[in-house]
Amino acid sequence: MGEGQTVPLAAEQAHYLFSVMRLGVGDAVLVFGGRAGEWLARVSTAGKRGGALLCERQTRPLRLPPDLWLLFAPIKKARTDFIVEKAAEMGAARICPVQTDFTNAERIRQDRLQAHAIEAAEQCGGTYVPEVCNLRRLSDILADWPEGRRLMFCDEALVGAGAALGDAPRGPWAILIGPEGGFSDAERTRLRGLPFAHPVSLGPRVLRADTAAVAAMTLWQQALGDWG
Amino acid sequence: MGEGQTVPLAAEQAHYLFSVMRLGVGDAVLVFGGRAGEWLARVSTAGKRGGALLCERQTRPLRLPPDLWLLFAPIKKARTDFIVEKAAEMGAARICPVQTDFTNAERIRQDRLQAHAIEAAEQCGGTYVPEVCNLRRLSDILADWPEGRRLMFCDEALVGAGAALGDAPRGPWAILIGPEGGFSDAERTRLRGLPFAHPVSLGPRVLRADTAAVAAMTLWQQALGDWG
Repeated sequence: MGEGQTVPLAAEQAHYLFSVMRLGVGDAVLVFGGRAGEWLARVSTAGKRGGALLCERQTRPLRLPPDLWLLFAPIKKARTDFIVEKAAEMGAARICPVQTDFTNAERIRQDRLQAHAIEAAEQCGGTYVPEVCNLRRLSDILADWPEGRRLMFCDEALVGAGAALGDAPRGPWAILIGPEGGFSDAERTRLRGLPFAHPVSLGPRVLRADTAAVAAMTLWQQALGDWG
Repeated sequence: MGEGQTVPLAAEQAHYLFSVMRLGVGDAVLVFGGRAGEWLARVSTAGKRGGALLCERQTRPLRLPPDLWLLFAPIKKARTDFIVEKAAEMGAARICPVQTDFTNAERIRQDRLQAHAIEAAEQCGGTYVPEVCNLRRLSDILADWPEGRRLMFCDEALVGAGAALGDAPRGPWAILIGPEGGFSDAERTRLRGLPFAHPVSLGPRVLRADTAAVAAMTLWQQALGDWG
């Protein structure tokens, strides 16, 4: 997007703007996406199966979230949707569904979850949409871990032990939330042995995975992210 | 509850235990409630419309959460249920739905929300069930505010300003989460003028009310509650 630039509309977007919202040529909309920030645009062409917008001016610059990934084990559909929504609101840069030893999910609908992340970004007035990755095995992700990225590992076995982020350094991070039912012993042993892993406790009560995701992102954003 | 004590079952509980779970006389269950903690009990009488349990021994003592109230403006049904569930998991002692200037809800189903809180406590292995209060006007609650209780007021207008709990004192607290659409100017002016109110920012992104509730309880539990 840029001043005077035309943005073509996909059939679905045209349907929403012209049939649902009943906009016509000349009507104004706010658009965002990619790295362009938010723009005021006007409908320049309106058709049944497409159309176009003309960008007038940038209303808000792109605001990138901190370099935080959220890794979580997909659970029931409604709660998985919820975790993706909350990750977008809480400012995760990337959302990675992972398969753990106790995860039942064999596949996810990446396209549906990505659409969910876009909607959440729209809802909370964001200018950035986190990328939703495809489902991968936790063991594969750990074997392939990017250098320099730290891992906040929310360990149910630490309940009540009070391990916190403390003086952990800033920089690229990921948060890992286990499935309902927790990590297997093998996973926990492996995670504890990783040099880049920081085990953190989420208090004395056992939290559901979706609650744990929001709570963990809150602790991280407050200690190391953009809430400070 | 106490050793050797008999606990009568309501028709609904009897239905669940004997028809749904198919338990019979002599079978063991874990029960909790009131101030008794969690007990191992056995079915002593099983009938179609009632029955009784005999308490054997306490398996876990009552673990009271800190003295934290969550005040929130009820929103759509699913998200209201969600806030009640999350408040129970995150260790609120009392859950108070409030009517603000921009709250549409005229009434709530207190009994339904209370049942939801019980279920959430069961799910997360709690031994304490927070009380769900009836809906009251925010202005009435503030006019009648208990002495010595502080109020963490999550002010959307502070987005990005970084106001935090800092060195706020421990003791009885309440968290107030506004409705979608925020507080009215009159409410915000009043809240800011209250000597017991501490405005707190929840970061640079606008959060939905249910996300804000979990995030605010996380900050509070970490700074002043039982996560530290």
